[in-house]
Amino acid sequence: MLTLYSSQLSGNCYKVRLLLTQLGIPFRVVEIDVVKGEQHTPEYRAKNPNARVPMVELENGELLPESGAILYYFARHTPLWPLDPLLQARVLQWMFFEQYSHEPYIAVARFWVLYLKAEEKYREQLIEKHKGGNRALAVMEGHLRDRRYFVGERYSIADIALYAYTHVAPDGGFSLEPYPAVGAWLKRVEEQPRHIPITHPC
Amino acid sequence: MLTLYSSQLSGNCYKVRLLLTQLGIPFRVVEIDVVKGEQHTPEYRAKNPNARVPMVELENGELLPESGAILYYFARHTPLWPLDPLLQARVLQWMFFEQYSHEPYIAVARFWVLYLKAEEKYREQLIEKHKGGNRALAVMEGHLRDRRYFVGERYSIADIALYAYTHVAPDGGFSLEPYPAVGAWLKRVEEQPRHIPITHPC
Repeated sequence: MLTLYSSQLSGNCYKVRLLLTQLGIPFRVVEIDVVKGEQHTPEYRAKNPNARVPMVELENGELLPESGAILYYFARHTPLWPLDPLLQARVLQWMFFEQYSHEPYIAVARFWVLYLKAEEKYREQLIEKHKGGNRALAVMEGHLRDRRYFVGERYSIADIALYAYTHVAPDGGFSLEPYPAVGAWLKRVEEQPRHIPITHPC
Repeated sequence: MLTLYSSQLSGNCYKVRLLLTQLGIPFRVVEIDVVKGEQHTPEYRAKNPNARVPMVELENGELLPESGAILYYFARHTPLWPLDPLLQARVLQWMFFEQYSHEPYIAVARFWVLYLKAEEKYREQLIEKHKGGNRALAVMEGHLRDRRYFVGERYSIADIALYAYTHVAPDGGFSLEPYPAVGAWLKRVEEQPRHIPITHPC
């Protein structure tokens, strides 16, 4: 069976758990406690020198880190990855947007506030994180104003990638109220068959 | 003809110029001066609300931002994108690695030092940037110690994505001397047919 090295705290890991569940692919989870720094143990670094979760271990022992790469690998022959090459590129466009312009602000703010409980310590940096995160949310709001999903008017791994940290942005001190189109899209994602919440135990 | 919105200063834009040149795809360049902030003009934001370069405009007017998505779109039917699905995922793995664990350190340090000439102003933050960048370079070094290219022992868009800012890392105060396998790989990339340097005028 597939093994997923995952942290229950990480939205990047949740993306993979959500996709595998929706595709009906069975997997077992090895929990990596990122607050304790278990991703830095020599044993884990031997598998992933970049010391990050998620990572999957295929049945033949092949290891694949990076949530975006894992989503592509399992979705590529399913309706969650479009057939049209330009739409495929647009799915990747939004997945790269998420990792570069969204996650480093929204996920990091959430980690500081919710898990490290260090809102005071990071007060100054949180201002920058909120600025960057709201910039990303505004880009999403503009895009979703006349669209139901991010690409090609159907649910894809771009929606999974962006849903993961957007719906828990309030954990990091963000308000989603100024983004009604984002809010309506979050609901559409949650209505997909076999949706599981980020807190779903594995 | 294809239009590329590009900054001569940006390694992300260079990735696209290098790929299109190597594939023999003609393109015209619209230079966006990112030091002057031309990516924030209402005219440009109407095309790309995320206000970043590169972005391509196809002949039919379709717009595609995000260097990783652009590389995929133009390489997908060429030897620079593997046929095997796991190798395809590994190419994306390294492209996401570059955008998340490499570029935010190495490219940003280079921008501060080389273009803003603000080494003093950012002295404190540069320490963090150098730490993160050297972490990424060490991961690359370990991977390349027994490999000629990043994925499947042949040149791919993963190599293009990682080459762009790695070879100019010294511009941001990094030394590549501790990374001899990276150095040897840089040379292999530079020996590819129709390679152009980052300074090549368009």
